[in-house]
Amino acid sequence: MTEPTSSGPSALKGWLVFGAVLVAVLITGLLLASIMERRAEAAQGQRVLQPIKAWESDSSKWAVNWPREHASWKQTEQKDTKTKYGGSHQYDLLADVPANVILFAGYPFSVDYKQARGHQYAVKDVTDSGRNIMTKPGTCWTCKSPDVPRLMAEMGPAKFYDTPAKDLIPEITHNIGCADCHDPNTMALAISRPALIEAFERQGKDIKSVSHQEMRSLVCAQCHVEYYFKKDEAKGEKAYLTFPWDKGTGVEEMDAYYDEKQFSDWTHPISGAKMVKMQHPDYEVYSKGIHAYRNVSCADCHMPYKTEGGQKFTDHHVQSPLLNISNSCAVCHRWGEEEIKSRVESIQDKIVHGRAIAEDALCKAHFDIAACKQAGATDEELAEVRKLVRKAQLRWDYVAANNGLGFHAPQECQRILADAADLAQQTRVACVRLLAKKGVSDPVIYPDWSSKQKAQDLIKLFGKDATPPKLIAGK
Amino acid sequence: MTEPTSSGPSALKGWLVFGAVLVAVLITGLLLASIMERRAEAAQGQRVLQPIKAWESDSSKWAVNWPREHASWKQTEQKDTKTKYGGSHQYDLLADVPANVILFAGYPFSVDYKQARGHQYAVKDVTDSGRNIMTKPGTCWTCKSPDVPRLMAEMGPAKFYDTPAKDLIPEITHNIGCADCHDPNTMALAISRPALIEAFERQGKDIKSVSHQEMRSLVCAQCHVEYYFKKDEAKGEKAYLTFPWDKGTGVEEMDAYYDEKQFSDWTHPISGAKMVKMQHPDYEVYSKGIHAYRNVSCADCHMPYKTEGGQKFTDHHVQSPLLNISNSCAVCHRWGEEEIKSRVESIQDKIVHGRAIAEDALCKAHFDIAACKQAGATDEELAEVRKLVRKAQLRWDYVAANNGLGFHAPQECQRILADAADLAQQTRVACVRLLAKKGVSDPVIYPDWSSKQKAQDLIKLFGKDATPPKLIAGK
Repeated sequence: MTEPTSSGPSALKGWLVFGAVLVAVLITGLLLASIMERRAEAAQGQRVLQPIKAWESDSSKWAVNWPREHASWKQTEQKDTKTKYGGSHQYDLLADVPANVILFAGYPFSVDYKQARGHQYAVKDVTDSGRNIMTKPGTCWTCKSPDVPRLMAEMGPAKFYDTPAKDLIPEITHNIGCADCHDPNTMALAISRPALIEAFERQGKDIKSVSHQEMRSLVCAQCHVEYYFKKDEAKGEKAYLTFPWDKGTGVEEMDAYYDEKQFSDWTHPISGAKMVKMQHPDYEVYSKGIHAYRNVSCADCHMPYKTEGGQKFTDHHVQSPLLNISNSCAVCHRWGEEEIKSRVESIQDKIVHGRAIAEDALCKAHFDIAACKQAGATDEELAEVRKLVRKAQLRWDYVAANNGLGFHAPQECQRILADAADLAQQTRVACVRLLAKKGVSDPVIYPDWSSKQKAQDLIKLFGKDATPPKLIAGK
Repeated sequence: MTEPTSSGPSALKGWLVFGAVLVAVLITGLLLASIMERRAEAAQGQRVLQPIKAWESDSSKWAVNWPREHASWKQTEQKDTKTKYGGSHQYDLLADVPANVILFAGYPFSVDYKQARGHQYAVKDVTDSGRNIMTKPGTCWTCKSPDVPRLMAEMGPAKFYDTPAKDLIPEITHNIGCADCHDPNTMALAISRPALIEAFERQGKDIKSVSHQEMRSLVCAQCHVEYYFKKDEAKGEKAYLTFPWDKGTGVEEMDAYYDEKQFSDWTHPISGAKMVKMQHPDYEVYSKGIHAYRNVSCADCHMPYKTEGGQKFTDHHVQSPLLNISNSCAVCHRWGEEEIKSRVESIQDKIVHGRAIAEDALCKAHFDIAACKQAGATDEELAEVRKLVRKAQLRWDYVAANNGLGFHAPQECQRILADAADLAQQTRVACVRLLAKKGVSDPVIYPDWSSKQKAQDLIKLFGKDATPPKLIAGK
């Protein structure tokens, strides 16, 4: 047996322990340093805030206090992101779906209708729009710039709405930014536009009593809603921005509201029906869906939290969640990005299917009414079918015009599209019967609207002093 | 200062500790006893299994080995459970939706059509059915009893299908039970009916290679599917049970299959259209939905795991998950039972809405075709509209006939119902045009089918030697 000595394996073990302790101390030191650094970064967030003046419309002035939010907000400049049905790429919705040209004939959306892009393009896109928006009232500026609340504070909303859009151009220079949604003193979320506040009031609700989480959707609902330009001669109003929410935000309730007001945006030159253009009832559709039911706000998906240098903040690069799946959807839905994308697209594909059925029936319905007119039907005889096609198209547009292609409330949107197609077909049944009364039994001769160009050329033939194509044989 | 003594607070503390130890020992003893008892119960589950003979159709013979499964299976006797749209209560689907009478005119479903109830009633309900099923081929017995695989083993499937149902009554005495889904030797899930195996083979798939989890749906898919009675004179087949899956299990694929086979179940006496009755394409619809996508099987929701006396086993009380939410839905969806129920019903409400639109359009389409006939249209002239109404109704029925009211694949079902309504309305447009060709421009005079009785009286008028009501004025 060998006796253990101090220079044997026992001494080696001692050195090993000593070495391990050294390494552990080193690692602890590095960790502590890293933690200190992050604390220091975080402390920057607690800097003394610089005062921002009321109605400051220049977002770069807010950047001194909120550099990370400002930097991410700037990213809404991106203009080439694409999802299957959206993104910031300006898809031409008339080329993609030429039926849009027919359905909006006689209305500027038949001339120019593009997928909206980032907030950084708000001023440019409304000024340059092929819809000639600068020939319209100031109301059209309402959602485009933080200069608007400043001007409204100076002029009052009614006067702002009443000023020609063109005359406001010099005053409106900043794109949608900080002042649109935030109080400059407290940085609290704040409603800067009167229409939403007024809509709440008319429904007997106080917008000041809502929760912070609700505000994370309601600041968006200032603009991402259906609205119309209310005229009230008695009050001297010409285009007072109003949300048609008095009976509720469902499509049937808005339809009833517009019927009661006998409101229409334009008269359709093919059918002669008095139409309503739905704008982008994003908030209304969202509020019928599962995400709203689970109290998930707009910001939760479109402006998810982000971390930089130990700081958690809200990503102000507002965009499709499909362009930022890992920070958005995947926070709750723990699947792979490709899988999430394919789930969303499979939902949107079904909406597109239902939308296409409705579009085909609607286009034919407008031409069927025109055919009745050519066969000698009177306005009185056409009153019922014109009402029907208005109701059908309003429903279709409630889904078609909203962002997200029905994803915000898929089942509700599918229900509405089925109703739209059914009502459009009911219009057609009634038209064919009317044609029979006028002695016409041959099928309506539908013209070709299979491309944007063909459709745009076609609707010109239904303009003033133009000769429409013959829709019934022999007449 | 008082010195501590052994009879002071320190002694009291000692007694307290002693007492606490006693209590702890007692509790430990009780826990151990409980664990031992559970082990003993669990050990019962590991009893030596008694042999069960091949094709044993009497489920009570299996009970010796599987007492808990057998006891829960017996509970499918319950006949009074109700959900908003289902349960084991035998809703009268003709009274609830009189349009069913019109749509199935000339077919036994217009006489008697009830919500199915528990497996324990399979033999009784098929024997007593107002659809006179005992006058039909043996094929009608296929899904009703574990005596069927026994008889098929003896006779061969073809001969079984070919024997009149009535002649098999003495042999078929046991309700759907153990032998329908299990191998008696291994208790493994097993396919006992040839139609599913043959459908797999025709698609080039081997049903033996599927996973256990897939089997937990496929044993159900032996019966809960769309099927038809294939006739093949060359093979001497009169009613060979066949799944129309060769092109796929989607509704468009089945439609194409039936068109190619020029198959129809009956000729509709009102429209003269050659119709297909969809049975209950539960598996097909399920396979298009999110639960199937997530690999949740039929059994996971309809036969969730259950624990009794320390034993976990599959609850064989097959029923609507809405009657067992806490063990079924709530295992994954951690919400309150009322909330889960209301979510499911809000989905089903939208399906019922889409179904009602389709039903109204379909009933009118059948009468519109009848009106054309009354106006003198020939079979040749009616060929197109009859094809259209067949396609429309097949789609509607794919959704309407399946259990769960579309819940198994809500978006797919809404898509299909929208198509059904649209196709039915296209039928109507074509009919009105045909009426015009025959000089009829007045609206079709729709008779009243607003109750089961009225609807059943009405369809009799379209029977042989009866005089149908006048559907067009003056004729």
